[in-house]
Amino acid sequence: MEKLKLMTLYADFRKDLTYIEKELERSVNSSSPIIRQASLHLLRAGGKRIRPIFVILASQFGTYSLEDVAKVAVSLELVHMGSLVHDDVIDDSDMRRGFKTVKARWDNRVAMYTGDFIFARALTSIGEIEIPAVHELLAETMLEICKGEIIQIDHQRRTDQTTRDYLRRIKRKTALLLSSSCELGALVSGAEPSIVRKLRRFGYFAGMAYQIIDDILDIISTDKALGKPAGSDLLNGHLTLPIFFIKDDEEFQPFMARAFDGTLTETERFEMLAYIRKTGAIEKAQAVSDLYLEKALAEIASLPENDAKKAFMQISAFIGKRKY
Amino acid sequence: MEKLKLMTLYADFRKDLTYIEKELERSVNSSSPIIRQASLHLLRAGGKRIRPIFVILASQFGTYSLEDVAKVAVSLELVHMGSLVHDDVIDDSDMRRGFKTVKARWDNRVAMYTGDFIFARALTSIGEIEIPAVHELLAETMLEICKGEIIQIDHQRRTDQTTRDYLRRIKRKTALLLSSSCELGALVSGAEPSIVRKLRRFGYFAGMAYQIIDDILDIISTDKALGKPAGSDLLNGHLTLPIFFIKDDEEFQPFMARAFDGTLTETERFEMLAYIRKTGAIEKAQAVSDLYLEKALAEIASLPENDAKKAFMQISAFIGKRKY
Repeated sequence: MEKLKLMTLYADFRKDLTYIEKELERSVNSSSPIIRQASLHLLRAGGKRIRPIFVILASQFGTYSLEDVAKVAVSLELVHMGSLVHDDVIDDSDMRRGFKTVKARWDNRVAMYTGDFIFARALTSIGEIEIPAVHELLAETMLEICKGEIIQIDHQRRTDQTTRDYLRRIKRKTALLLSSSCELGALVSGAEPSIVRKLRRFGYFAGMAYQIIDDILDIISTDKALGKPAGSDLLNGHLTLPIFFIKDDEEFQPFMARAFDGTLTETERFEMLAYIRKTGAIEKAQAVSDLYLEKALAEIASLPENDAKKAFMQISAFIGKRKY
Repeated sequence: MEKLKLMTLYADFRKDLTYIEKELERSVNSSSPIIRQASLHLLRAGGKRIRPIFVILASQFGTYSLEDVAKVAVSLELVHMGSLVHDDVIDDSDMRRGFKTVKARWDNRVAMYTGDFIFARALTSIGEIEIPAVHELLAETMLEICKGEIIQIDHQRRTDQTTRDYLRRIKRKTALLLSSSCELGALVSGAEPSIVRKLRRFGYFAGMAYQIIDDILDIISTDKALGKPAGSDLLNGHLTLPIFFIKDDEEFQPFMARAFDGTLTETERFEMLAYIRKTGAIEKAQAVSDLYLEKALAEIASLPENDAKKAFMQISAFIGKRKY
């Protein structure tokens, strides 16, 4: 459903996306039945495929070879998927996007190895690309994502964080992989260095905006649309941008304390979400996201006019307004 | 202690090993305190550094650059270390080599991310090597190790396995990484293709022998020398080569059943180990290991005479006789 809606945004690239989707399925086709099932389960649970899309779009600014672009796109989507599986172990999450998580449907051990397998597949997919910078960048990106996940554990349930901590965390969690998607798509198609740099920065700023909106949706959306309980971030002990504007409010602190220690009732959860919504914290977070989107658009303003640029602009508009 | 004994085997390469050891420490030096501590804990718990040694020795058959060789050696040792951390989560192991495991000292979550971090570091270490075949081979090796780990879960506590299943499992668990250590050491120093092939096969056969001996030691060695309870493989539900010779014996089956369901007492554990020792299963497994070592030596027989070849031969002899 959500994938279909997004697809209309970039109908021009539908053929390439379909090809990449097939390659993704092929790449997780393991001889081990558990792994194959767990990976396919994960793949079919969907996601917006925003990383592959960024790779495809960025590659339009150079000499485009679908085969190479697909290798990079598959690799980046797999890195993302692998980190989600491991995240679910950390967060002890049972649901994601309306589907049971791998750790819930099987167990933590299967989730750990499915993640490892998917990471390893990400490497074999990109392994054939003969550009050293591509490997260096992917390795560096994976390392930073990892560090981000570790820091996330470290920050869990800690109220002495700053928005700076939050922004650094989402940079590693989301923005870097989107930034690398743009950079690698441009690199693999041999785009000019100045264009590569602009696309990299576009991906970074768009990624920051994207994650902030994601974190807002966790508060203002419904359980059904999210495919998991609204407020999950707080229930998992993760402070997101809107919360930084209210975490010192006396009225809010009891909610936060009970969310963190797991004693929040379902009624209180909805009260908490309603409370956050009426404080104006959502609008403040939205304004920060808008700032990042402006920066993203400024980066690509001077790029040559083509369908990819148009699509990047549409996606930016979509990120700002998305409801899922 | 064990490292020191092994060091005398290849005193000629001590300087290089010391350099690699420093690079290993440097590579896990993360800005996250937990990760740094967990990784250093792991690094200092030691190990024989057999992968770095194989890389160094194999690199002597080409034009040797310590800097490049170290990057490869560090990367392979990190892949090994990362997989150990994840193995300990799967096996729920508290001790390894006489040290508390990461998952015991911290928890499963820290162990999972420490493993991920170490894998990512393995990639950044090798990322700077500008030989595409190196990246492909490392990716392929990591994928196979992963598959091996998944198959290991699948085979856990199953008595309907064959020795063929076992040999395939240890190929992925150990032999491939040693084979790749030799191949990558040779590749990165630009050795001739025929030499690269011989070294790769040497590593594979030596690795098979090495793991069989490791599995024998788990039965015949002491808790103290192992740094964990003797018989751990059976307690964790893993069938190793000696067991295949006796798993259908009526006398042995009650031991195996209780080891698998966790009801084996300490007295029974020692009785079980004594029973296995007197059946001749150890000698039969040793004979298989010896066969692999012969094959290993045959591969390198025609290599040019140098200190590295001599060291490979000494190591092979050491593997056959090692007591730890």
